[in-house]
Amino acid sequence: MTAEGAPRVERDGDVVRITMCRPQRRNALSREHLEQLLAAVADAGESDATGIVLGAEGPVFSAGHDFADVLDAPVADVRSLLALCTELMRALQEVPQVVVARVHALATAAGCQLVASCDLAVAAESAGFAAPGGKGGWFCHTPMVAIARNVGRKRAMELALTGDVIDARTALDWGLVNRVVPDDGLDAAVDELMARATRGSRASKAWGKQTMYAQLDRPERDAYAVAVEVMAGASQLDGAREGMRSFLEKRRPVWTD
Amino acid sequence: MTAEGAPRVERDGDVVRITMCRPQRRNALSREHLEQLLAAVADAGESDATGIVLGAEGPVFSAGHDFADVLDAPVADVRSLLALCTELMRALQEVPQVVVARVHALATAAGCQLVASCDLAVAAESAGFAAPGGKGGWFCHTPMVAIARNVGRKRAMELALTGDVIDARTALDWGLVNRVVPDDGLDAAVDELMARATRGSRASKAWGKQTMYAQLDRPERDAYAVAVEVMAGASQLDGAREGMRSFLEKRRPVWTD
Amino acid sequence: MTAEGAPRVERDGDVVRITMCRPQRRNALSREHLEQLLAAVADAGESDATGIVLGAEGPVFSAGHDFADVLDAPVADVRSLLALCTELMRALQEVPQVVVARVHALATAAGCQLVASCDLAVAAESAGFAAPGGKGGWFCHTPMVAIARNVGRKRAMELALTGDVIDARTALDWGLVNRVVPDDGLDAAVDELMARATRGSRASKAWGKQTMYAQLDRPERDAYAVAVEVMAGASQLDGAREGMRSFLEKRRPVWTD
Repeated sequence: MTAEGAPRVERDGDVVRITMCRPQRRNALSREHLEQLLAAVADAGESDATGIVLGAEGPVFSAGHDFADVLDAPVADVRSLLALCTELMRALQEVPQVVVARVHALATAAGCQLVASCDLAVAAESAGFAAPGGKGGWFCHTPMVAIARNVGRKRAMELALTGDVIDARTALDWGLVNRVVPDDGLDAAVDELMARATRGSRASKAWGKQTMYAQLDRPERDAYAVAVEVMAGASQLDGAREGMRSFLEKRRPVWTD
Repeated sequence: MTAEGAPRVERDGDVVRITMCRPQRRNALSREHLEQLLAAVADAGESDATGIVLGAEGPVFSAGHDFADVLDAPVADVRSLLALCTELMRALQEVPQVVVARVHALATAAGCQLVASCDLAVAAESAGFAAPGGKGGWFCHTPMVAIARNVGRKRAMELALTGDVIDARTALDWGLVNRVVPDDGLDAAVDELMARATRGSRASKAWGKQTMYAQLDRPERDAYAVAVEVMAGASQLDGAREGMRSFLEKRRPVWTD
Repeated sequence: MTAEGAPRVERDGDVVRITMCRPQRRNALSREHLEQLLAAVADAGESDATGIVLGAEGPVFSAGHDFADVLDAPVADVRSLLALCTELMRALQEVPQVVVARVHALATAAGCQLVASCDLAVAAESAGFAAPGGKGGWFCHTPMVAIARNVGRKRAMELALTGDVIDARTALDWGLVNRVVPDDGLDAAVDELMARATRGSRASKAWGKQTMYAQLDRPERDAYAVAVEVMAGASQLDGAREGMRSFLEKRRPVWTD
């Protein structure tokens, strides 16, 4: 595959880097590209990696759906495209790895939804974020599901209704990204955050991440019902025992799971 | 109607301006005033306008319920008053227009709830926001439903329990309003935000706004179930097709819906 | 009881101060300590106090669970420990008093969950907050239920996955605490906030606080269904009538409930 083809997938130590590299298409999420990304995320999810970095090359992080896929398509085809796209967003949350978005440039519509769906996100200062459907003819319904769950309600409505781009600092202030750094410090900041976020027992972390998404949307009482059971079960893992034993013995833990 | 009567309703281009103008009553939300506001919002909702500005005149934006309506009223009457008030709040979210609150002064209790219930809000620097029931004898139960969905949990509890006024800058920081501007720039800022928020296909925007409220409160999986169906259907609208076609043809769109 | 024993409980005017004072155990939440705290909160809840301050002594606010309770314990024992801990968190929300966390130092894991579960929180500048399980072997599942409901989603994931400590200013920015003050101003700031948060009718405030937690997690429509009924009923309380009558008569209210 060339720069116009499938996302580049590289194993780098314990991290899988998935990089969209169709710059001339603004990394648009065509059906083919969605299938490639979903396969790459699923493969990484089944690997023994502890982290996934989702990044892109070119002047745009991702411009979202490819209008050429949608214009004049029957509703059933658009529906299946959106279902596929939703499956990708869900896969980012369901894989056991920590997923960090590396956002070097403009992320719009479903491209912004990708950032919102990753566990963590690091943005370069020149990055930007928008849900532009609201100022056009096709509202960003599904992108706003993910984006609205990262920012407050009035801010979600502003992004959705105006379609305007917010800069990286605003995205940080609103809670859409975790870090904003100078453009030339982006890789270092991604690696640093990933290193911090992947410490500890792998089995504990994986179950932890997955349970976060299982409890976040529930009423508090229901969330506790889930979290108590999982945390009780998680106490029996080798990693939990090693973590507690090493703490009580005042030595460094050795993770085996 | 005089300044003591019904809200003033003015059509200004594509925008309907609804202005509470009972300054001597601090724009209190009496049963009559709620009915007038609800009728005005419903009428605007059925018009071909694209936006609604909800504003007020006088030293206070709105002081919320009129205690004269409630004191010594039987519970059934208070209940129907609160149900009517809730109906107004819901109408602001259900009309197809973009609704912008223009907040020039203090908004308290159900007056603050009005701001929280609009899609977007612009505040003058001298505006303030409070849920004062908590420091009195009648807790702001229903106002806090809307206010708490705009700000974080600890901030909601602070507003509810202390009853203190926060200034416009704090409201911006907490996500209760979208813009804070010098008092003499309020109208310009409202108009500028409304213009940005009403670009694009009217049919797409209306369905977009209504779907936002349909998905915001749902668990993420349920929200996607709603958003995928609506977005697939919305791809068939004339506006969606025109938006995509004009983009692919690199020309300006012409909206007909 | 000595400094290694039960929390200190002091009645100070209308406020009950509950202070964890096992500094050599870093105020760890052993089963015994949880039972003592729960009993203290329940007792305060049944008293005629209007406020509860939850604080601690020593170099750490609270380090959360005591690993000595959990290591090699069967899953049923861990489950009952976590259920007890959850009961304490819920009690903080269910008591009729306003509960303010007084955070003078590091609050981690279930210690941070305590802060997140109080109605309001005041932190000294040298305080810090973390959910460190994510960098060890036992993920902070139940602490994150409370913490994630105070901060945004990306910030919750950062706390959970990295296990890193955030400082008090960051906690304020993220909405986990309501005030940050110099260390030597902590008591004054707690007292000032408590005084503001306990004004007004006691019966109105208690029902108000409890209803906040009943409505916060619900979809907006369901939340209104709860709030309308409660607010209608609350209009019949003596305090509500006195508040409204005194306002209309332009005199100071006298609270009797």
